[in-house]
Amino acid sequence: MADKQSTKPPSGTRDFLPNEIRRREHVVGVIREVYERYGFEPLETPAFENIETLLGKYGEEGNKLIFKILKRGEHEHTGEADLALRYDLTVPLARVIAQYQHEIPKFFKRYQIQPVWRADRPAKGRFREFYQCDIDSIGSRSLVIEAEQLAAVSEVLDRLGFDDFIIRLNDRRLLTALMESFEIHPREHGSVLVAIDKLDKIGVEGVKRELALRAVDQIAADAMLRIFVRESSDFDAIERMLGPKVLDDLREIVRLTEGTPARGRIRIDPSLARGLSYYTGAIMEVAVPDLAGSLGGGGRYDNLVGMFLGRDVPACGFSLGLERIIVVMTDRGMFPTDITGAVDVLVTMWEESELRGAAITLAADLRTAGLRVEIYPDPDKIARQFKYAADRRVRFVAVQGGVERAAATVTIKNLETGGQESVPRPEAAVFIARALKKES
Amino acid sequence: MADKQSTKPPSGTRDFLPNEIRRREHVVGVIREVYERYGFEPLETPAFENIETLLGKYGEEGNKLIFKILKRGEHEHTGEADLALRYDLTVPLARVIAQYQHEIPKFFKRYQIQPVWRADRPAKGRFREFYQCDIDSIGSRSLVIEAEQLAAVSEVLDRLGFDDFIIRLNDRRLLTALMESFEIHPREHGSVLVAIDKLDKIGVEGVKRELALRAVDQIAADAMLRIFVRESSDFDAIERMLGPKVLDDLREIVRLTEGTPARGRIRIDPSLARGLSYYTGAIMEVAVPDLAGSLGGGGRYDNLVGMFLGRDVPACGFSLGLERIIVVMTDRGMFPTDITGAVDVLVTMWEESELRGAAITLAADLRTAGLRVEIYPDPDKIARQFKYAADRRVRFVAVQGGVERAAATVTIKNLETGGQESVPRPEAAVFIARALKKES
Repeated sequence: MADKQSTKPPSGTRDFLPNEIRRREHVVGVIREVYERYGFEPLETPAFENIETLLGKYGEEGNKLIFKILKRGEHEHTGEADLALRYDLTVPLARVIAQYQHEIPKFFKRYQIQPVWRADRPAKGRFREFYQCDIDSIGSRSLVIEAEQLAAVSEVLDRLGFDDFIIRLNDRRLLTALMESFEIHPREHGSVLVAIDKLDKIGVEGVKRELALRAVDQIAADAMLRIFVRESSDFDAIERMLGPKVLDDLREIVRLTEGTPARGRIRIDPSLARGLSYYTGAIMEVAVPDLAGSLGGGGRYDNLVGMFLGRDVPACGFSLGLERIIVVMTDRGMFPTDITGAVDVLVTMWEESELRGAAITLAADLRTAGLRVEIYPDPDKIARQFKYAADRRVRFVAVQGGVERAAATVTIKNLETGGQESVPRPEAAVFIARALKKES
Repeated sequence: MADKQSTKPPSGTRDFLPNEIRRREHVVGVIREVYERYGFEPLETPAFENIETLLGKYGEEGNKLIFKILKRGEHEHTGEADLALRYDLTVPLARVIAQYQHEIPKFFKRYQIQPVWRADRPAKGRFREFYQCDIDSIGSRSLVIEAEQLAAVSEVLDRLGFDDFIIRLNDRRLLTALMESFEIHPREHGSVLVAIDKLDKIGVEGVKRELALRAVDQIAADAMLRIFVRESSDFDAIERMLGPKVLDDLREIVRLTEGTPARGRIRIDPSLARGLSYYTGAIMEVAVPDLAGSLGGGGRYDNLVGMFLGRDVPACGFSLGLERIIVVMTDRGMFPTDITGAVDVLVTMWEESELRGAAITLAADLRTAGLRVEIYPDPDKIARQFKYAADRRVRFVAVQGGVERAAATVTIKNLETGGQESVPRPEAAVFIARALKKES
């Protein structure tokens, strides 16, 4: 069966070995715990959708990035696809809302943490299989929804140990009104938003060049950028031009979060644009100083999740970027040391049949006491078994050989301290459990 | 955006709404917790593999059931596939072992709980997307490995509440030796095993008919079935024919588990065949009385996981069938009642701006105390808010209107008892947390 083919995972995907999974699960565990306390409920959808469910939902560019699945059996030779891998968690949510509209509550708050697949060109930090962690609140236009999501996301980041994040907050209607007041043609609004979104990356001159390409009058561009770029944005100018309504909404959102973990985290920032076209109200994005992109973002999109129902359904969502959170936490050394998943005890193995059975029974007793136990399976030389335990960073080795068996004891060696004790067999589990507690 | 297309999930797949996810997570949580204590470590691999990794690994039939992914971009029109969805968790494990052979420990014990995809015809209980929960122990030929897996699987089923399962245990070498002793051509061994595997379903006469189709001499068929079918299999006859070696191994496995949760669960059963061809030693399968198929099974397969390395690597694995476990637990009403994920408290909403902020702050305090809290987002009539809480089976409603605000109190209504109390605002969280503890 020898085979010379590559054993790497496919381009843009990753295998997760135990230590990496434990870090991922630490982050996902915090996210779930917090979202559950905020009343969000879990939803899962299939990895693939009928292809017509996805096509046409992500624009020209998105269509090209969808992984399509060949028809099977007699239809395979046609080269046609009838299924496609999930591209995001929002379109499946829209389908679920239409399909189960009579089962789900009027205010449906769901979280969904699942992988999505995009045939992007792989690059550092850009994968073809990656997890999205989304919350969405369906069914209400109240600003309470935005405030709650900001509070929940802030609490997640707090609990993960981020102490320097801010959440930029803007409103898509403010940007639209600004563009209208500068007489930018609605046809150009999308690409102007994309240009403004790059302010952080390409600077004022860069944005000006992009705006010029989009036939934005230079005087208008200068005036717009003056509003965005000042150290503190010119809220008075915005209010004079547009009236107070939208700014009032943003201020109300900030005010509503004052008794929550989002307190002090939110900055109203008129230059926040967000790339996606479907937002209709508040938009928000998490920034940390040492990351060019964002740790997550979201906003209100009242016209999208009703797409399969044929009517508007109010919705607001926030998506945390699991991969980026892990990158920053790794760079900063933010992971707790106790999530390594190291085994607590290695039980040694013997040649003699009776000692083999006794080793397994000892392991069973230690496991019943809640310890994580590995049995060395082969009756190798004892020094080799100890070396294996040390390499695997196991903390205790439990030896129950012929001598111990005759004396009804277990020899327990602490590989961290090098200490060794003979313990009566029935007390072995309690002894190790106590020693572990003392250490932590 | 109205759209008349179907909003059902694709054929053979399922959406999991919150209540279903909580039941699945209960089962998966127990499986993980137990496997962790046995020293198994988590592994995850991508949803798709390069197509050549999967093709040819599952036989003629398996090849047809693989979901293939179209090449992208300029190659899409060729109708060719370069990727394919994971068909099981074993071939990806073999790839991982080859790729990371210098990083993983000598004895690699991993668990993997991920979906797999097969283009089978959907039927009751048969899905195109379903989860496998696999453990595999790599690197040792010791029977301790089999004993440990039997102990771990028994503990999982115990903890889930199964009190009537048995694990059938056999050895593929015994079946092979029996077939050889009856002079069945090696070419026919695979299909004869498949026929014997159906004994439970099609009975003795059915198996005889299948064996006749496979050119098995009628006298040999009768003799073989006499060995298998007797109430207690004829171990003496087997021992006379084959010598004691293989039966001794099976008895040693049973003996090794006597101090573990597998005690009393294992039946040596020479008629257990298991469909797959790759087993080389012990085979095992979990049976419960009210299920025709099995809840899981596995065995030793020393020639498979080394396929990408070009050398034999000893391995033994066990796969639990998550979907079947959930079916039986649902039929028997085995799920605990406290995994509904119901929200603890609904906080009511008001029109007045100050009361809205106060409601969100109250919710934040309740969440800090660990409660699961939903805020009613719209300032609807209070009766409507209470009805929503009752429909959602929320246990408490916390009301903080103008009257309560002036008195610095919160009115807390228990929707289960109908009781209502006025509680000082700072004590609200403790009051509800205590009341919940009393209930449970």
